[in-house]
Amino acid sequence: MRTSIATVSLSGTLTEKLTAAARAGFDGVEIFENDLIGSPLSPEEIRDQAADLGLKIDLFQPMRDIEAVPEDAFARNLRRAEHKFRLMRRLGADTVLVCSSVSPHALDDDALAAAQLRRLADLAGESGIRVAYEALAWGRHVSTYDHAWRIVEAADHPALGVCLDSFHILARGSDVTGIEAIPGDRIFFLQLADAPQMALDVLQWSRHHRCFPGQGDLDVAGLVRAAVRAGYEGPLSLEVFNDVFRQADAGRTAVDARRSLTLLQEAAGLAAPPEPVVPTGFAFVEIATADTARITPLLTALGFSRTARHSGKPVDLWEQGEAGILVNTDTGSHRPEPSLTAVGLESPDPAGACARAESLLAPVLPRRRAPEDAPLDAVAAPDGTEFFFCATDRSGRTGWTGDFAPAPHRPAPAGITRVDHVALTQPWHHFDEATLFHRGVLGLRPHASVDLADPYGLLRSRAVSNEAGTVRIALGVGASPTDDPARGGRPQHVALLTEDLVATVRRVRAAGARLLPVPTNYYDDLAAHHTFAPGELETYRELGILYDRDEKGEFRHCYTVTTGRVFFELVERVGGYDGYGARNAAVRLAAQHAVAE
Amino acid sequence: MRTSIATVSLSGTLTEKLTAAARAGFDGVEIFENDLIGSPLSPEEIRDQAADLGLKIDLFQPMRDIEAVPEDAFARNLRRAEHKFRLMRRLGADTVLVCSSVSPHALDDDALAAAQLRRLADLAGESGIRVAYEALAWGRHVSTYDHAWRIVEAADHPALGVCLDSFHILARGSDVTGIEAIPGDRIFFLQLADAPQMALDVLQWSRHHRCFPGQGDLDVAGLVRAAVRAGYEGPLSLEVFNDVFRQADAGRTAVDARRSLTLLQEAAGLAAPPEPVVPTGFAFVEIATADTARITPLLTALGFSRTARHSGKPVDLWEQGEAGILVNTDTGSHRPEPSLTAVGLESPDPAGACARAESLLAPVLPRRRAPEDAPLDAVAAPDGTEFFFCATDRSGRTGWTGDFAPAPHRPAPAGITRVDHVALTQPWHHFDEATLFHRGVLGLRPHASVDLADPYGLLRSRAVSNEAGTVRIALGVGASPTDDPARGGRPQHVALLTEDLVATVRRVRAAGARLLPVPTNYYDDLAAHHTFAPGELETYRELGILYDRDEKGEFRHCYTVTTGRVFFELVERVGGYDGYGARNAAVRLAAQHAVAE
Repeated sequence: MRTSIATVSLSGTLTEKLTAAARAGFDGVEIFENDLIGSPLSPEEIRDQAADLGLKIDLFQPMRDIEAVPEDAFARNLRRAEHKFRLMRRLGADTVLVCSSVSPHALDDDALAAAQLRRLADLAGESGIRVAYEALAWGRHVSTYDHAWRIVEAADHPALGVCLDSFHILARGSDVTGIEAIPGDRIFFLQLADAPQMALDVLQWSRHHRCFPGQGDLDVAGLVRAAVRAGYEGPLSLEVFNDVFRQADAGRTAVDARRSLTLLQEAAGLAAPPEPVVPTGFAFVEIATADTARITPLLTALGFSRTARHSGKPVDLWEQGEAGILVNTDTGSHRPEPSLTAVGLESPDPAGACARAESLLAPVLPRRRAPEDAPLDAVAAPDGTEFFFCATDRSGRTGWTGDFAPAPHRPAPAGITRVDHVALTQPWHHFDEATLFHRGVLGLRPHASVDLADPYGLLRSRAVSNEAGTVRIALGVGASPTDDPARGGRPQHVALLTEDLVATVRRVRAAGARLLPVPTNYYDDLAAHHTFAPGELETYRELGILYDRDEKGEFRHCYTVTTGRVFFELVERVGGYDGYGARNAAVRLAAQHAVAE
Repeated sequence: MRTSIATVSLSGTLTEKLTAAARAGFDGVEIFENDLIGSPLSPEEIRDQAADLGLKIDLFQPMRDIEAVPEDAFARNLRRAEHKFRLMRRLGADTVLVCSSVSPHALDDDALAAAQLRRLADLAGESGIRVAYEALAWGRHVSTYDHAWRIVEAADHPALGVCLDSFHILARGSDVTGIEAIPGDRIFFLQLADAPQMALDVLQWSRHHRCFPGQGDLDVAGLVRAAVRAGYEGPLSLEVFNDVFRQADAGRTAVDARRSLTLLQEAAGLAAPPEPVVPTGFAFVEIATADTARITPLLTALGFSRTARHSGKPVDLWEQGEAGILVNTDTGSHRPEPSLTAVGLESPDPAGACARAESLLAPVLPRRRAPEDAPLDAVAAPDGTEFFFCATDRSGRTGWTGDFAPAPHRPAPAGITRVDHVALTQPWHHFDEATLFHRGVLGLRPHASVDLADPYGLLRSRAVSNEAGTVRIALGVGASPTDDPARGGRPQHVALLTEDLVATVRRVRAAGARLLPVPTNYYDDLAAHHTFAPGELETYRELGILYDRDEKGEFRHCYTVTTGRVFFELVERVGGYDGYGARNAAVRLAAQHAVAE
């Protein structure tokens, strides 16, 4: 099916919006009236620009407060419609959206609404234009799609059909199976938007909090399936009012939108992109730094061994248990401080994972960095992190490790078995995009979103993982940017799993690792909340270990102080504990600020 | 009455919060448990720090999910309480907040709740601690203040009273007159917060959208009056959960908070700061620029005459009708481009206006800039704009104009009669602070807030004015900051009133003023919406005039292109039109971006 996007979903001038939509691969656009009015281009120039970009103008939107009004008001409305139909002919748009009236002057009279819509369709038909009538969820008398369809059916005019909008239908909790009773050729248009579930006035919810399908809580795919079963053959069109999209880069938003639509088509059985390939573990985490003087002693203290050196690049592999850390000093000039730049995911099918990513518009990175390197399948995530799809054969050193020559360097291991999770900071305004990327492209399952209280603002955090919990990524986004850049650019971290945190901490402390000091007040609070075995709490206090407990198990964790833009966490999971110690986040964040100041 | 603020209302570390509260003049604080847990200071050090700052620790908050639970759970709760009471003794806090339980294990049993709260109060009383029981609006079984009071009354313990929270009470629409039936000495604490009216889940509304009294829609003053009539003599304490305050500068937020509380005390009849002095007109608008080469020709083309020069500073006065523009080239190095820096308000009592501003913590500017200058009463607004309170005697050139020597320079006036309004851009995150400042300090009335669609994000705009409409200020705030600084720092503008816009525009165009080009599509849309006298629309199209009409009258306006950080608007009001042409804002903003690119 054809794909389309409403210009109101994108930021910028009309030309910027059209260009972004075309580059992301949309087939058409809905042109929002205000975008046209504010444009210095004439309707003919807009038509030509869209055509040059390969875009059809699928819809002109919207006309409001048209129907079920006294005759004198309707005469004014018809006059207005004449102007707009003339404009649409110049624009080359053949379908107009008419939203159900919200006017206090509208009458609760379906027969009048049908008669007036029939007259409007008569006028439209003369210009070769079709009228798509849509029930707004907050329409004065018409607020459900079946009501809108009854009026359209009564009007019985070939130039009059319905427009179905997933937000208006699903926000009201309407049953979508009724859509199948509408003849497919009378569904003139399908507008798609998702939204997080909110107990908010529906008008505010719609105007400010819509998001792309798959980023919210509505069953948009179910609605699409119903429309397709009804015989709908028009475009799948995104119409998303969102305060963030209004100010974000249009090109980026359009790619996010197009990715969402492909995933929606897949979910609705309308498209079959390459199947998701779920990663099975972490192959490595890469830290880039211009100077290893700060990171090497820390890795050594954490019990890592430098086991190999890349044959062609200044990249060292450090290992302990199954945890691998690449230290890359080939950083150019823009990353002087240690930063987390890449993640290697163990993949049962790296080429397949890459093909799926490419079909979902993820930027695919060059397969070889140098001619002599082993080929690597890698993509860039929305936050700039590079994800490599790896098939490690640890015994034979083929695959990605084939480029590395052994470099024996063996400190005493500290009991770390593997990478538990990585925490990646997402750019402000792109959290939903990141979640969709990690779910759709990487095949990871998103968990609930939580708010974490930093002393300088709330942070939002959402974990994604595979089912086995062997790949876990904590996506975080900071408070909105302030004038103080020192408070932006939050550090990222790598959490390392151990089966005995107390023993590990004792070893890494003895080896010189500097761990984050935890306020004493925290332990007094722990004592108030839990009972512990004799000496247990004192050990935590002595070692700076944080503790959480839920119905499934226990969690112990602690942190190194931050080095550049990165720090490490050491974690121990007991029983079925599946979280990340969110209840300790506030004290950890406060402690990190205290150390940094 | 004493004033207090909860640390959760402010950003930063506990020390930063205490310092900010003390500097803004609060008498005490409520210490939020997480702020203490995250602090590296011991409870004794916190107690000493607060004492050094002159702050009493009025409340420790909160304990949750205490009451109406099975005995084994209550035993654990008492154990937890023992820890917390020990902590409070170290802290020197004598009142603890206990919120009504939200636990799914809580029982709907008032007698059990009363009995357990009585046991808790017994334990507290032994430590000299009072328990203040508060009904959360979303409490599982206890969600109204009268219900909480019935339980406290039944428990009948001297160490147990109620805490009244204006948000929880007013958000549910409870009748506050029932408060007067509670003996004043059993109201242990009064927490105050306002909030904008929202149809949002009350928990989300409370956690993220509270604001300081006077910044929202709740009748906080009415509640305070009821509590005072009941005999309450404890502190008035602000407890505001707000995502913005969590990340804003704590010192600034504390001043905003303290100002809000003074205005609340005034509204409730508990304090009498100097009375508001409502300004009657604009005396002048000051534009600072390092170089007059760009602004002088524009003022000349707009028909302004340079009528005077300051005797001691490089400041020129330009006049037309009653509109005065000061051009100040004494800008230092930080304002090279023309910027709107100061506004002179005609005041019936400049000294009184200044005294009120000072009592409301507005930074008062030095009365004389140079020894020979006439004394000036001036304050700085939250956005940095300097407001001068002037008593102009135009005939005798006394008052602020006494420093100016006539400098005849007389182009043909263009029909401008006075300043209609100024539009001031507010710093991101400080819109509510600005509104409260303009209402409380300057004595202007806020109007409804509107969203304006800029191509690169929604803008929020809110006008404040005096009753006569002779002082109007449009406060605006941009979309949240992005990485692109070119999109920040929006220009500000001065709107000049004329009685015949068409004639004025013809004159200023002929004199060389460069006006903002308006897209042709705008006039096609106007034609669809309104009928005009013959030739009228063509004139607007020719001259780039925007048009609005409402039930009260008509509005015509147009804009100069932006010069530096400032532009001018020319406006004509017909009939009782009282707005600012908000429906034309999107096209104006798009046109401004088009010119700038």
